[in-house]
Amino acid sequence: MTAGMPFSDWSKGVQALMEVALSTLLPAMEKTPQRLHEAMRYAVLDGGKRVRPLLVFAAADVFDAPRDITVRGAAAVEMIHAYSLVHDDMPCMDDDELRRGKPTVHIKYDEATALLVGDALQTQAFLVLSEGEGESARKLAMVRLLADASGSLGMCGGQAIDLESVGEKLKLAELEQMHRMKTGALLRASVLLGALSGKELSEAESKALDAYAKAIGLAFQVVDDILDATADSATLGKTAGKDAADDKPTYVSILGLDASRELAEKLRHEAHDALAMFGDKAQRLCEIADLIVQRKM
Amino acid sequence: MTAGMPFSDWSKGVQALMEVALSTLLPAMEKTPQRLHEAMRYAVLDGGKRVRPLLVFAAADVFDAPRDITVRGAAAVEMIHAYSLVHDDMPCMDDDELRRGKPTVHIKYDEATALLVGDALQTQAFLVLSEGEGESARKLAMVRLLADASGSLGMCGGQAIDLESVGEKLKLAELEQMHRMKTGALLRASVLLGALSGKELSEAESKALDAYAKAIGLAFQVVDDILDATADSATLGKTAGKDAADDKPTYVSILGLDASRELAEKLRHEAHDALAMFGDKAQRLCEIADLIVQRKM
Repeated sequence: MTAGMPFSDWSKGVQALMEVALSTLLPAMEKTPQRLHEAMRYAVLDGGKRVRPLLVFAAADVFDAPRDITVRGAAAVEMIHAYSLVHDDMPCMDDDELRRGKPTVHIKYDEATALLVGDALQTQAFLVLSEGEGESARKLAMVRLLADASGSLGMCGGQAIDLESVGEKLKLAELEQMHRMKTGALLRASVLLGALSGKELSEAESKALDAYAKAIGLAFQVVDDILDATADSATLGKTAGKDAADDKPTYVSILGLDASRELAEKLRHEAHDALAMFGDKAQRLCEIADLIVQRKM
Repeated sequence: MTAGMPFSDWSKGVQALMEVALSTLLPAMEKTPQRLHEAMRYAVLDGGKRVRPLLVFAAADVFDAPRDITVRGAAAVEMIHAYSLVHDDMPCMDDDELRRGKPTVHIKYDEATALLVGDALQTQAFLVLSEGEGESARKLAMVRLLADASGSLGMCGGQAIDLESVGEKLKLAELEQMHRMKTGALLRASVLLGALSGKELSEAESKALDAYAKAIGLAFQVVDDILDATADSATLGKTAGKDAADDKPTYVSILGLDASRELAEKLRHEAHDALAMFGDKAQRLCEIADLIVQRKM
């Protein structure tokens, strides 16, 4: 229904809609404990490119999914993403003071609050998925998908591998496995949550979306590494050059800058090719692949 | 089916069954990332009285619930409980070095691992509930119940209020609200998860179980405070006298020791009375109320 709209208008529309949806689906600031709720809202609202919600909506578009369940899928995955950022930024992890150009939660509030904010945001994600309209079987499948992608065999496990690898020389295959879990799993879940919010997927549809998700997941990380090595902190809204300073293995440190850029471009084409069976319906997914590779922050 | 069995045999049976179930439902140690999985298992296995699983099984007994879904409900609530302990013990929270007589996770491993262990255990709880046998609607209701009880309006929110109240003189009503969220919400969820694993509850059944859960939830905390003030660390398996040292408000500091003991006994009777409509079927729930009030650790 939005097929003729330029991508930037479509994505701004989704971002605006998500801001309202997230605000509604987070606990109100007036509720006790107020400080916790204020901090949860600080961590989620008014920030971020909302890449994961964009993926959810773009995939939902392919299958003409009903709006309520798509919004809940998008909000849930964004809350999981936000919780992981809050915890990753804490002193015992990456010890970052800046996120999306604002003080991180443990700086703005305190460490204990940051810990609880992350914990409560994760819970809220599953609560949001379990409520609202739609068949129970569909919602339960979305809970399972999101839990699977964000737990110890997905995002959280990737974070653990990342921690262990600081100062180590990872091989390219190990680096890819780490990122496939740490970042890729949740991006893949976003695509599949959007699709699932529309219908049960056939094997061919699942496979095509998986191939797309795998390509953009990897591309996302390659571009992150390129930006970390080339952009400045003001543009990024977070501390640049941090991976090199922390002696973390990156695509740039392993492949070099030129080969990293070529890889990102190759992955963008793979993502487009994977979506061929969906024709024009996959327009937004293609455009997001472009966005991920061509972004400057 | 276990009605004639002494409570201690029944509870040992549930505890043994839960040890096997939790071991099966946690990610295997051999899977990558191994250190995270080892630490998750360390945090959950071989310890604790398993009060919450006992409640799940006891409530499931009332409604003759099928075994698989009861076990999953019990495992999920125990994983949520375990995650909350791991995070509560961290330096930015209670800074405890001893739990169930063993070094806490951040001492045995490190802070970053403790953070991820808690995060991944929470996810695993929702994953476990979303899988396995049983109708989707029932499993989804269990997800919603557990998320509701453990988030910012339940356990996690209670923890936030507890943090803010250190050094403050809470009134009895405020103290009760804090504990109703921090400890009571998950105990209540245990009772309702067990019951829900058997059937959809009538309003009268819900109300009766709620009254029971409210009484034992409060009793649990009152007895915790009594033990913290009177027992030694070796018996408790954790640091005794810590609340007083931290200047945390407790029932003992507000009511005194004798009135606290009377309150616990009164709550035990209230718990029994609430279950009258279920007759002998509620035997185990009654016995757990006794256990909670009469425990020495």
